[in-house]
Amino acid sequence: MPELYFEDFTAGQPIPTVSGRVDAAEARAFAEAFDPQPFHLDTAAAQASPLQGPAVSGWFTAALGMRLICESFLLRTASLGSPGVEEVKWRRPVRPGDVLTLSGQIADVRSSRSRPDLGILTVALTLSNTAGEIVMTQKATIFVGRQPQDERP
Amino acid sequence: MPELYFEDFTAGQPIPTVSGRVDAAEARAFAEAFDPQPFHLDTAAAQASPLQGPAVSGWFTAALGMRLICESFLLRTASLGSPGVEEVKWRRPVRPGDVLTLSGQIADVRSSRSRPDLGILTVALTLSNTAGEIVMTQKATIFVGRQPQDERP
Repeated sequence: MPELYFEDFTAGQPIPTVSGRVDAAEARAFAEAFDPQPFHLDTAAAQASPLQGPAVSGWFTAALGMRLICESFLLRTASLGSPGVEEVKWRRPVRPGDVLTLSGQIADVRSSRSRPDLGILTVALTLSNTAGEIVMTQKATIFVGRQPQDERP
Repeated sequence: MPELYFEDFTAGQPIPTVSGRVDAAEARAFAEAFDPQPFHLDTAAAQASPLQGPAVSGWFTAALGMRLICESFLLRTASLGSPGVEEVKWRRPVRPGDVLTLSGQIADVRSSRSRPDLGILTVALTLSNTAGEIVMTQKATIFVGRQPQDERP
């Protein structure tokens, strides 16, 4: 059973901060499968690019961010999926081996006009490296179920 | 050597249409690694969710979209990476085994104020299934190198 329902979230509330490491082999396999641009696969091409060295695919960073969102609060929440993200900004290169920390807050909480059984969260997310540099920001929309009536206090 | 430089793109230009299949095992491995929400891993949870059946992670769809962008034109282009995407909308569930088709157009072409060696494309992208339903839309920003002067006609 979920621990957290829509009623448990308020605008401005921080989400629990969690960290994860960028596994070099996992990031490389991801680039080979989904983003085989030379600067993600070849060291010389990476050095010559604006990334100025080996850097993982931005979509790998987004996927790792999703893993951290799950760990932070989403797997304990009555999540009903997402209709999308408002923006994803890749602000600095993410290097293989980096440890990234997810932080963020509930930016907005609103009811659904069409679905009385759920509410809509906007979550503002930041991924930072151990140097304190922000590497990615994102605004995600998440549908969250309301607490069942028979569980309400 | 790239075939396409910034000078080769104009606003309104369609990108080549390409298709790819959602491999069920690959999508499941992705969900286990990055988005282990019950409705991506468990058939009963998927049926009970708004997805109304097995559906891949939206981030898997985005990653598959990136693979198709690469195939469509990006691997032939002097791509210098991306600062982000303006939006990603997951409009309908993507099912394991679906064949998705990427189409889109160059929505905007502009010079970089800070980097005279590159230009900035905005690409409006649509992924559709074989029923013709749009499953994802996205607006991506891509940095593209200008043609080297010694190669100009």
